[in-house]
Amino acid sequence: MLDVCLLGSGGMMPLPKRALTALMLRYNGNSILTDCGEGTQVALRKTGWSPKSVGLILFTHFHADHVTGLPGFLLTLGNAERTEPLLMAGPRGLTKVVNALLIVAPELPFEIRLLEFTDNSSFEYEGVRIKAFKVRHNIACYGYSYEIDRRGKFNPDRAKELDIPLKYWKVLQGGDPVVTEEGRRFTPDMVMGEARKGLKVTYTTDTRPCENIVNYAKGSDLFICEGMYGEEDKKDKAKEHKHMTFSEAAALARDAEVRKMWLTHYSPSLINPREFIGNARRIFPESYAGKDGMMTELRFEDE
Amino acid sequence: MLDVCLLGSGGMMPLPKRALTALMLRYNGNSILTDCGEGTQVALRKTGWSPKSVGLILFTHFHADHVTGLPGFLLTLGNAERTEPLLMAGPRGLTKVVNALLIVAPELPFEIRLLEFTDNSSFEYEGVRIKAFKVRHNIACYGYSYEIDRRGKFNPDRAKELDIPLKYWKVLQGGDPVVTEEGRRFTPDMVMGEARKGLKVTYTTDTRPCENIVNYAKGSDLFICEGMYGEEDKKDKAKEHKHMTFSEAAALARDAEVRKMWLTHYSPSLINPREFIGNARRIFPESYAGKDGMMTELRFEDE
Repeated sequence: MLDVCLLGSGGMMPLPKRALTALMLRYNGNSILTDCGEGTQVALRKTGWSPKSVGLILFTHFHADHVTGLPGFLLTLGNAERTEPLLMAGPRGLTKVVNALLIVAPELPFEIRLLEFTDNSSFEYEGVRIKAFKVRHNIACYGYSYEIDRRGKFNPDRAKELDIPLKYWKVLQGGDPVVTEEGRRFTPDMVMGEARKGLKVTYTTDTRPCENIVNYAKGSDLFICEGMYGEEDKKDKAKEHKHMTFSEAAALARDAEVRKMWLTHYSPSLINPREFIGNARRIFPESYAGKDGMMTELRFEDE
Repeated sequence: MLDVCLLGSGGMMPLPKRALTALMLRYNGNSILTDCGEGTQVALRKTGWSPKSVGLILFTHFHADHVTGLPGFLLTLGNAERTEPLLMAGPRGLTKVVNALLIVAPELPFEIRLLEFTDNSSFEYEGVRIKAFKVRHNIACYGYSYEIDRRGKFNPDRAKELDIPLKYWKVLQGGDPVVTEEGRRFTPDMVMGEARKGLKVTYTTDTRPCENIVNYAKGSDLFICEGMYGEEDKKDKAKEHKHMTFSEAAALARDAEVRKMWLTHYSPSLINPREFIGNARRIFPESYAGKDGMMTELRFEDE
């Protein structure tokens, strides 16, 4: 099961009733935070989720509304007695930005590791495959896919046929080969069915529509996409500022054949995003106006 | 008239229902912000006051909870179309801290001027005399007094006796000398009574009690003082972390003979500060538990 929480839904500046856009994912006791604007730690506290399990922080880009909450967040992690290393990953420049912001948080009780992307990248974190993909903003900016694979079903009849001792079943189910005391060797593919559908979430903000988004979001269970403007007549403004309208986001969701889309990163001028959700649903019916603290639990198909 | 607003009342980290401690003063259309933690711009927005008039930002010290809101605040000032220069003042190290934080706000539409203190200091800003005084925290930290002088009353009978033409009265009232066309010279002291009681606010946070606070807060109309802990049995903790209890703050208020004290900068562990206000009032009856958005208008005595 993958817990997803959109911590905030605003862009540009935090508002009294709208926190800045950030995403929290929780899987198997480990959490991934994506973006950390001013007030993200407060938004997280409102959910009741602990910050302590955050072991990875991803940044889409380094505009202030996606990053200035970092020093406070790290200090709060320290106060929550995190001592395990913390990985941060983002576009080139991450080291410089993090080191600059840490001027006001010089002493943290955990090690910080940094990973900078220079192009589309992929890495694993605690059972989640992270794919960073380049998008089109006015500075270097990445979107992220978070994928959790699911192995095939274990076939006990086949295991019995092969006379595999019971004590090795769990090892094979876990994906590792075994060698018995008598020297017989078994590999998982002998007893596991074909890989089943896993889980996939994609998050992208501060970008114009682009092919990379469609490719990387392909088949997502949940696609979280910026929709800076709800109004159709703000398409020029969206182009100028390298953002999107609701309908542009919906076209991406449709083309990527995702299951569901949450819109986020609203302009402060967009008071009631739901008012314009029709502009998205006309193109992609499973469009929803994201809001602060919006949560879902994604489960494997037959879980 | 001096408008005073305590934007937040928390210390250490912002909470869903308690913003970080910061003070806003507004006098004659100009505003002074003191401290700018994560979320200060949101707290200001809640008051309905415009950020645009903020021409001076003071920092008590550079712990994250007093400064990480700065980049977002400056961007919001820029969005509010401020173009006039902005002065920031604080302890030595200000330039380094501001330049580091501005990595995420590199382009602002106004000039930034910086003033670093190395000891007790005094300067004027738009009719307000700012006095910065050293206090006792675990890093360099300053408290601030904000003083507005008030001239004596204009004496029209005396002006008539001296045969000063009417058109010069306003100049003299404004504090400037005049020379008439016939070469007669008049100075304000000829027609103005003795200086009257002005207004004085003092703000200090993140400090142990010390003599400097009593001296600089002397006679304040409003004394805003940290009270990290309400409970008397947390005195040792207060000493260890270089903070104060409510009763220690009250003793300062009494010794400085202020009119009124607002407590602020509560520990996140202090859920209901009012519960402990008695610990302050026993020593200084005019003690109040500050809360987010608490406002007052200070007026000259016969205004």
